[in-house]
Parts: sequence; structure tokens; C-alpha cells
Amino acid sequence: MTTLSLDAATLLQHIEALGQIGADAVHGGRSRIALTDAEKLGRDQVVAWMTELDLTIQIDEIGNIFGILPDQEGNTQHNALMMGSHIDSVYNAGALDGCYGVLAGLAVTKAFRDQGILPTRPIIVAAFTNEEGVRYQPDMMGSLAHAGGLSALQVLNTIGTDGTRLGDELARIGYHGDMPLGTLKPSQYLELHIEQGPILDKEGIQIGAVANLQGISWQKIYIKGKANHAGTTPMSMRHDAGYAAASIITFLREHTQQSPGTLATVGSIQFEPNAINVIPRAATITVDLRNPDNKSLCTAEQALAEHLDTLRQSEGVTIESEVLARFDPVIFDEQLVNVVEQAANSLSIAHKRMTSGAGHDAQMIARIAPSAMIFVPSKDGISHNPREFTKDEDLIQGAKVLLATVESLLSH
Amino acid sequence: MTTLSLDAATLLQHIEALGQIGADAVHGGRSRIALTDAEKLGRDQVVAWMTELDLTIQIDEIGNIFGILPDQEGNTQHNALMMGSHIDSVYNAGALDGCYGVLAGLAVTKAFRDQGILPTRPIIVAAFTNEEGVRYQPDMMGSLAHAGGLSALQVLNTIGTDGTRLGDELARIGYHGDMPLGTLKPSQYLELHIEQGPILDKEGIQIGAVANLQGISWQKIYIKGKANHAGTTPMSMRHDAGYAAASIITFLREHTQQSPGTLATVGSIQFEPNAINVIPRAATITVDLRNPDNKSLCTAEQALAEHLDTLRQSEGVTIESEVLARFDPVIFDEQLVNVVEQAANSLSIAHKRMTSGAGHDAQMIARIAPSAMIFVPSKDGISHNPREFTKDEDLIQGAKVLLATVESLLSH
Repeated sequence: MTTLSLDAATLLQHIEALGQIGADAVHGGRSRIALTDAEKLGRDQVVAWMTELDLTIQIDEIGNIFGILPDQEGNTQHNALMMGSHIDSVYNAGALDGCYGVLAGLAVTKAFRDQGILPTRPIIVAAFTNEEGVRYQPDMMGSLAHAGGLSALQVLNTIGTDGTRLGDELARIGYHGDMPLGTLKPSQYLELHIEQGPILDKEGIQIGAVANLQGISWQKIYIKGKANHAGTTPMSMRHDAGYAAASIITFLREHTQQSPGTLATVGSIQFEPNAINVIPRAATITVDLRNPDNKSLCTAEQALAEHLDTLRQSEGVTIESEVLARFDPVIFDEQLVNVVEQAANSLSIAHKRMTSGAGHDAQMIARIAPSAMIFVPSKDGISHNPREFTKDEDLIQGAKVLLATVESLLSH
Repeated sequence: MTTLSLDAATLLQHIEALGQIGADAVHGGRSRIALTDAEKLGRDQVVAWMTELDLTIQIDEIGNIFGILPDQEGNTQHNALMMGSHIDSVYNAGALDGCYGVLAGLAVTKAFRDQGILPTRPIIVAAFTNEEGVRYQPDMMGSLAHAGGLSALQVLNTIGTDGTRLGDELARIGYHGDMPLGTLKPSQYLELHIEQGPILDKEGIQIGAVANLQGISWQKIYIKGKANHAGTTPMSMRHDAGYAAASIITFLREHTQQSPGTLATVGSIQFEPNAINVIPRAATITVDLRNPDNKSLCTAEQALAEHLDTLRQSEGVTIESEVLARFDPVIFDEQLVNVVEQAANSLSIAHKRMTSGAGHDAQMIARIAPSAMIFVPSKDGISHNPREFTKDEDLIQGAKVLLATVESLLSH
């Protein structure tokens, strides 16, 4: 089986071509938000490439796309090895996040086609619906549903930030498929992805064998105080929702200093009425907490909850918090991670075991099948940005490690 | 001279009628933003009432309106006693801020007309252009310019938040007057106003004899960090503009605890890109610092500047700060304040000396004439809000104290 070779030129060309779809000439990058016209064009392109490779194409009832290379007996489902990721994007995204994993999956099937052979087990390349969660929440929706975490009806009835119903948009773009959700249960799942963090780039290592994935806790916190005149209200008589919000941000920073491994981010904030000389009557912030260790993540959540209680007392404000997302840490399949490392070794490519800081479809599929991820470096760790960048050489090495991992898994 | 009596019913009716102009049936209150159509209607109403009182009406080249009750010799300028405030409002304002002072001034002139007598010196009722500064900055613009702090050309060439030129809007609504700016220099200035703070209401005192006015320092602070993925960027590698902004807010709170009398407010904040899972690349906040003592105000400004330096170092962010407004504290005329207190005493009305936390036209006119202010209670200190409220009884008492103060000043 070591006779397969990667068509690197085609892979790079596919990344380039898919990256042109939804390109934003004004603000840079591309915007292929899930189930928009631009994302439909991206889907059409991927399906066209699957057709060129003579894959069996299945689309499920929530729009997950599967391209299947049958095994030597024509079987398309039993004991399948799945590779995948997503092709939807955030606004003004780079060309790699998600797309790289799908297109490298296609490159693996092309290696078989180029050689004129079929695998010992079916190979499935998956492009999951709405991983980014920009328009419809939650993110990682297609893979979560595929793994049984959401029903098809829940997905289809999701109302987007623009007021649209997901099912309507899915039908509109022609990707409301016939296959029941969850039909294709793989025996293993691999996802190749850019790191979206700085570690590999900083350390000059080409491959990350991703052994686990951080737990994620997202909350929205709404603080209600009392608006009043900034010039006439004594400090002791204030109920300043803005101060309470700021206090949460600095508290979380202090907590991370006492709890190494915890990441805490407040990325979003709004004050009301947001006027220079009015004490904020309300403030809304989001909190993003992550930790590979669930106990530490729970500790951070608990510390935050206690701080909110302190603020309720000291500031005389009311505070409501809403869980937006909560995913336990995921430990990937030890054997699969070993195979990834061996594949990198066999190609003499430097690698390291690491934790995924970001959420990925693999964390959902890990609920139903042994899963692992392969990371390649992201320059300066930048992602969700037109400046997202990985060297062609690194992209090719990543795909080669994926191919070698597949070969190794199929040969056992 | 103690024969004059206030027509309280007409005063309350004028407040009610002016408050209807620009009323916002949907969001409450009224919006008479300077030089809009709604504010033109407010001006027309005030001018109509001035005409009813047979006052001499003068409008200067920046739209300040003056209604003059000549003295017994027909003199309209020499040794004049001026009362005034403004009739422009913030969005969804109460009916009292500014208007009360102008309309009580008219009530004082009405007391003379009702009695059929003329004062020993001219009485001028002023409605200054654009006190609120919502559409055109700076605030207190008309009185600042009247006192020589801005030229007519500077005022007229001011570009508003909506892109309009003030001079064009002034001409459009028909209030670009002939009188050169600064013509009517008074010998004394009195301004009756709601407190816009909680002190009188809380202490159950009907009259504030305002002895001084806090200094005001407004800054806009722009922090530039680096956007990055919330899940993959170690805490130690972040340049979090949002954290830096929050740290400024909590720092200012701590400073006020060490510096009694200092008020610090961050009323406005924006993060970019303001997304839950992206470390903010930029944050903009406004800072409102106030203190009746200029030295303490300078100390607060200096402490803030030092904290910004600390953040530049510790967070690796760039920070720019821009002065939006800076007014030194104002000490009102001791003799005038005494006369106000005596007037309250003569009417057996409870009063206290106090500091104005808010900025007022009086602080500008104090540059060119002995000035003082009279405050009445604001329920719960609420202002710039449809819920701004002062009891009719308190409004009447305030106008009576104003009238008694005027009588006392004219009798000397």
C-alpha cells in the first residue's frame, strides 16, 4: 500500500479555487457563510470534484455531504474510514480553515484513483454543514447532529441571526438531501486541519498529532444596573453595570494566572445607553472559557459564578448568565494518535502531540467513532482572518501524513 | 419691590407646552436636538412667548436667543441682569433640563409685566444654542461662544455627527441672527436648573445654592492589541485590547476610592471585532473624570496616564488618548450665592450650598460676569431620561427663589 502518492499540485489548486468562491474584494478573504448563495457555490464545486473522482455522493437531510470511495467489494458503508471537515466559513475568512481537511480527503481518494486501486474498506470524505455557527447556532452543527447530538428537526427548525429558518435555506440552495441523518457511521474518523494557534509555527514543527481537545464553556452575561448622570451621582450611590462587566474581565484574567491551562476570553461587550456621561444601566458580555481538563473548567465556571454573586452584592446590580455552549474536553483515540505519529515518523516529518484549542467536527464524531486530528502550522496562529496562512510545503506534508495514516489504517 | 408675584400656573403650563414639542410617542420623552426641525418649533414657541411679554428679542449670529425687558429708561443692554439656560435636549429627554431655567426667566419678566412696572436695570432672558452637544460638539457651545471661548466662525463651521454644518442648519431653521456674538455682556448671570443629581431629593431640601461647579475632563481612549483565536492563544501570548479597556475601568474605580470627591465614569465602550471567540484587536472607551478641585482632577488624569503606560508595557498594546473636553472647576460668585441663600431664607424655604456635578451654561458665562445657579430637586437624580421628574411644588418654589433673588439684586 505504500505505492500511493499524493497529487500535491491538484490539492493546492483545489484549495486556491475553493478559496475564490465568496471572495470579498473589498475587505479581503472570503465569506461563505453556511447555506448562503456563496456557500452553495462552494458545495457545488466540491460535489463536482467528487463527481470527477467518481465517488458515490450522498447528501443527508441536513445537508452534510459525503463522497464515498467504495471498497473492493463495492461496499460504501460497512467499516468505513471517514475523513472530513467543513467548507462553510466565517466572514472574511482564510482559505484553509475546514476546506483543507475536506480537500485533502479528496486528495487521498484521488491517490487511489490515480493508482487505479480500491481500498480494503470504504473511504468517506465528509463536508459537514455549518461548522462555524456564524448564521445558525450552535457551531459544529452538522457533525454534532451526525453524531446524534441534535435531531434533524432541531437542525432544520433553527432560526438564524438573519431570521431565516435553516431548513428553508437548505432547500433553497438545493442541499436538503434524501439520506436520513446519521446513516453513515464510520469505524474511524480523521480530520486534517490548520492549527489556528501559534504553537507549531512558533516551535518550527510541521505536524501536530492531536491527542485531545479542550473543553469549551460559553456564557452570555447580562448585567442590569441603573443609568445615572456621570457628573452628579456619588461613586457610593452607583449601580454601574459597566464597572461590573469590567470587573468580570479582570477577575477572569486573575483566575487564569492561578489556574495554568485555563483560557478565558471576553471578546464581546455592549453597554447601554453607551454614552460618555451616563453610568451604564446595562452591560452584556460573552465569556469563553477553555481547558483540556474538565475539572479545571468546572472550577473556572464556579469561580466566575462566585464572582457574579460578589458583584450582585457589592454593586447592587442584577446579573443573569446564559449558557451558550458547553462541551466537555475530548480525548482522542490513543491508537489513532499513535498511527498518526508513526505516519509522520515514516515520512521523517517532525511532529508533536498536542491539544486542540479550537472546536472541530472531530470532537463531535468522537462520540460515535475512534477519532483523531492532524494539525499543520498556522503562521502566527492567525485564523478567521484574511491573513490566515500556511506554507504550501506544510499543507503538502500534512496531506502526505493523512495519506500515510489512511494507508496504515487500511493495511491492518 | 416685594410686590411682585409669580404666575405659577403659566410657568407650569409653559413647561408642559414646550415639553410637548418633539415628543417621542414611541420611546418616551422628547427629542429636540439642537437645530433640528423639532428644536426650531421649540425656539418659535419661546420667541412667541417673549413676544406676548413684549420683550425686545435679539438673536445673535450663532442663534442664541435673548428676550429683553428694558429698564425704566428704555435701556436694553447697560448693567443688565441675565437669566438663562437652553431649550435643546438630548434624545428622549425630560421636559425640565434647560427649559425650566429659560421659562422661569420668562416668568420673572411676566411678574414685572403683570404688575405693570419696569425693572431698575434691564433683565435679559437667554436661551443658548446647543447646550447638550448631542449633534455638534462641544456641549455648552452657545454660552461658551457668548463668553468668548469660541468665535462665531468656529461655531458655524462645526460639522455635526450627521455630517451637517452647524451654520447651514442654523440658516435653514431661520435662526441665524444679525446681532454680533457676545454683544450682550451682563453684569450678573443667574441660572435656575434641576439638580440632575440625587442630593436634594435624598436630603429632602428644596433649594440648592450652587457655590461651585466641578471640573470636567473627557477623554477617548483607543487601545490597539491583536486579534487572535480565543481557544488557541496562550494567555501569555495575548495582546488583549478588551482586557486593557477593562483594566482601565477597574483602575479608575480604585482611584476614586483613594481620592474622595473624584468621580470617574466609563459610559461607552466598543470592542473590535466584538466576537465571542476572538481576542479583541481594538477597544475604544470614553473616560469622564470630574472634581470640584482642579488639583485633584489633574491627579486623576495623571494617574490614568500612568496606568496607560503600565498597560502598554504589560499587555503589549498601543494606546492613544484624545481630550474631548476639559473645563476647569468654576467657583461661582460668593455674593450672588449669598443673595440666593437670603432669598430662600426670606421665603422660609430649606436650602443648602452645593456643588454642581453637571456642566451648565452658567459655567461659561462665569468667565465674563458674576454668576450663580439655583437648583431644585430631581427625583432619584434621574435626568436625560423620560423619567426625569421634579414636583410642581418644587418647580414653583425654585422660580419664587429666582424671582426673589432678582428683586433683591435689582433693589441694590
